[in-house]
Amino acid sequence: MSRKPDRQIALVAFLQAQNCSTLPAAWRHPDARLDFMSADYYRDLARLLEHGKFDIGFFDDRLAMPDMFGKDHAHTVEHGIRCVKMDPIVTLMAMGMATERLGLGATCSTTYYDPFHVARMFSTLDLMSSGRAAWNVVTSVNENEALNMGRDGVTEHDLRYDRADEFMEVVHGHWDAWDDDALVLDQDNNVFADPDKVHRLDHEGPFFKSRGPFTVPRSAQGHPVVIQAGQSGRGRRFAARWGELIFVAYPTLEAAKPAYKALKDDCAAHGRDPDGMKIASLFYPMVGESLMEAEDKRALYDTLPNETDQLSLLSEALNYDFARKGMDEPFSDEEMEGLTGMQSMRDRAVQVTGNPNPTVRDFMTATGRGLLKDPWVGGPKEVADKMEEFFVERGSDGFVIGATHFHGSFEDLIRHVVPELQKRGLYRKDYTGPTLRDHLGLDHPQPGGWRH
Amino acid sequence: MSRKPDRQIALVAFLQAQNCSTLPAAWRHPDARLDFMSADYYRDLARLLEHGKFDIGFFDDRLAMPDMFGKDHAHTVEHGIRCVKMDPIVTLMAMGMATERLGLGATCSTTYYDPFHVARMFSTLDLMSSGRAAWNVVTSVNENEALNMGRDGVTEHDLRYDRADEFMEVVHGHWDAWDDDALVLDQDNNVFADPDKVHRLDHEGPFFKSRGPFTVPRSAQGHPVVIQAGQSGRGRRFAARWGELIFVAYPTLEAAKPAYKALKDDCAAHGRDPDGMKIASLFYPMVGESLMEAEDKRALYDTLPNETDQLSLLSEALNYDFARKGMDEPFSDEEMEGLTGMQSMRDRAVQVTGNPNPTVRDFMTATGRGLLKDPWVGGPKEVADKMEEFFVERGSDGFVIGATHFHGSFEDLIRHVVPELQKRGLYRKDYTGPTLRDHLGLDHPQPGGWRH
Repeated sequence: MSRKPDRQIALVAFLQAQNCSTLPAAWRHPDARLDFMSADYYRDLARLLEHGKFDIGFFDDRLAMPDMFGKDHAHTVEHGIRCVKMDPIVTLMAMGMATERLGLGATCSTTYYDPFHVARMFSTLDLMSSGRAAWNVVTSVNENEALNMGRDGVTEHDLRYDRADEFMEVVHGHWDAWDDDALVLDQDNNVFADPDKVHRLDHEGPFFKSRGPFTVPRSAQGHPVVIQAGQSGRGRRFAARWGELIFVAYPTLEAAKPAYKALKDDCAAHGRDPDGMKIASLFYPMVGESLMEAEDKRALYDTLPNETDQLSLLSEALNYDFARKGMDEPFSDEEMEGLTGMQSMRDRAVQVTGNPNPTVRDFMTATGRGLLKDPWVGGPKEVADKMEEFFVERGSDGFVIGATHFHGSFEDLIRHVVPELQKRGLYRKDYTGPTLRDHLGLDHPQPGGWRH
Repeated sequence: MSRKPDRQIALVAFLQAQNCSTLPAAWRHPDARLDFMSADYYRDLARLLEHGKFDIGFFDDRLAMPDMFGKDHAHTVEHGIRCVKMDPIVTLMAMGMATERLGLGATCSTTYYDPFHVARMFSTLDLMSSGRAAWNVVTSVNENEALNMGRDGVTEHDLRYDRADEFMEVVHGHWDAWDDDALVLDQDNNVFADPDKVHRLDHEGPFFKSRGPFTVPRSAQGHPVVIQAGQSGRGRRFAARWGELIFVAYPTLEAAKPAYKALKDDCAAHGRDPDGMKIASLFYPMVGESLMEAEDKRALYDTLPNETDQLSLLSEALNYDFARKGMDEPFSDEEMEGLTGMQSMRDRAVQVTGNPNPTVRDFMTATGRGLLKDPWVGGPKEVADKMEEFFVERGSDGFVIGATHFHGSFEDLIRHVVPELQKRGLYRKDYTGPTLRDHLGLDHPQPGGWRH
């Protein structure tokens, strides 16, 4: 095992502005905080992550509650299956205003918003946080979101990404409108800014038009960091073109190594420096002072999940009502073709089972949707060993940390594992700069640098 | 003069998430703070307003910089004519997280956003601030905004308001989705909320579709307060239907009294309680320890404005390039008809001059656009007298305070005038409740109460 001495693990907290984590059982965990609609909940979380020197915390998003299962929301609300979903950017500001260094990310869809508006929200977040903002770019796949947002249905997968590509061109174009040194602020001579350093975009493309000039100057880090998680073919090309922090979920180091290398190669093929793209892989820590304590925590957690939660989330992710089928009934070729949701999840069911026509139970087992799948259980040594190996062997540049419950999962990791990583020289003891780009080791973006 | 002893003046701070106040000269004021792109600027401002027991501070908004004048943005940028415009909701959260009681308002357009998204942003703001949020509802009139947001041009005036009416129905429908007592939070029995108390909207109208259920429960004040400023015929009907806090700019008490009464009557005609609608009239204070000190401040300010600033903002407001005409050239009937911007401004030029074909100079003088017009200049006694008379004689229920510069205009008012109003029993010495509705004396909204 060899590594550059300056290569450091990136830690990314995977957050939800909702009543539970990605795991619906999270709100029922006996240690869960239930004041998830208060600013204090997010402030305390932000301070905790900053205490743990995390690079960034970021919110996922969904513009609807899951109600595909049984075509009804009653079970969703009754059992708290991600039924609360607040605006992630507003919630993120509660975190940002309680911290000085922590990176701040939010998901925002290219499917339902306007690029000028998105560019302005994230630029403002970047200014208000002194250069700590990130945007997790997604395309929207859920029918219930389409219906809330006044559409008749979802857009076809590849077309969504074509549209997203142009969306990114508009947003980055606006982010380049003001040169870094455009402001003059000479009150006596009435010169606010240099007019030669503020540019109109005049974009007209197949999906979007936006003229400009953009109304927000650049931030301390130039512009927000772009997070991306696309894993299917077209989505991966999108990630390789735009992503600066890539959110992946590699199940094993063996699976991770070639996938990591392929993504970096794709990045280079786009004319980008592969070091300008950091890859962070998701895991759920289940950490105690000792392995035994961690295993007790695992046993406690395992009393919480149930099938309804799982089927509800699976139905939502794949845009298909799983209540229509018996547990061991297979999906026909036609039904497989008709699954319009997250394609990586559909493909995983086929891949894991080796069955082109998986059953409902196959989907549940193979995708682990709504379940805690393969948590990293252990004391400080066990979990740090695993992280070190994954990182040093180049399965990833860092980790996205998922939570079995808030804030306990992060408290445990920060108390037990972070000091061990610091001792090994794998993880910062303190922030070395003020901006998120400083934390991630990303260069200050040059205007037009995204035009690969 | 008589007044109910419990009737209290409402104070509303008129704020801009930009490089100046409504007055472009503001950034050149020698006492102006120039760190307007930092969180500290807004935090300090929020703490100041809370120290002054203001009901609320609210941001205006514009999705573009003024560049109608001469069809170019170079002069806008060079002279800082409102050329920076940040996202008001993100900026507002910086203020909200630095305070405990101050009401928090932001402008958001019904023309370019989606009602589900707007409902969710403001609901989240309301939760994160523990019931202090307000939404200033506008329709967008500027061509440069349309071009930034991918439209070919602006929508016709009355149609904009028809659309806005339906927008409000969708937003209020979503705000009513969760009953006030819907949450159960019983972890042991897996009952998160009562499914009978969470309702789907299923809205389908001529302009909008949105299904629901909405994903944000109610806040401590039920839902955000609605601010409205429509003053032309159709806009005033809209305000009377929806507005809970009305932003007006009555030039004199004589003009105010009948207009105030007419708005309250319109409100009652909609089946609403007129006390459920507070009317606040704009003025710009120019306050010192004494009248003489105030007059010195006035003289200093008067050295700052210039014609370019004024013509630029006038061009933007009326969607017409004033560079095309000489100063004393009149507008033809056809040109008057073609002014698609703020109709109340066009009408004022005719009304004040008595000329149906005003000249450029007439527009500048009559509208005062970009100029400080009729500030209330004085020491504590003079300004408090004027406010007391206006309030007691029912010219308004309170005041919107505009700034010649930040934060000085508010510092002066709070230091000199607020104690005088408190001494007279016209203004709170401290907040009596935690929510914005408490400050304004508005009832907790009943679900469906908006269906007049």
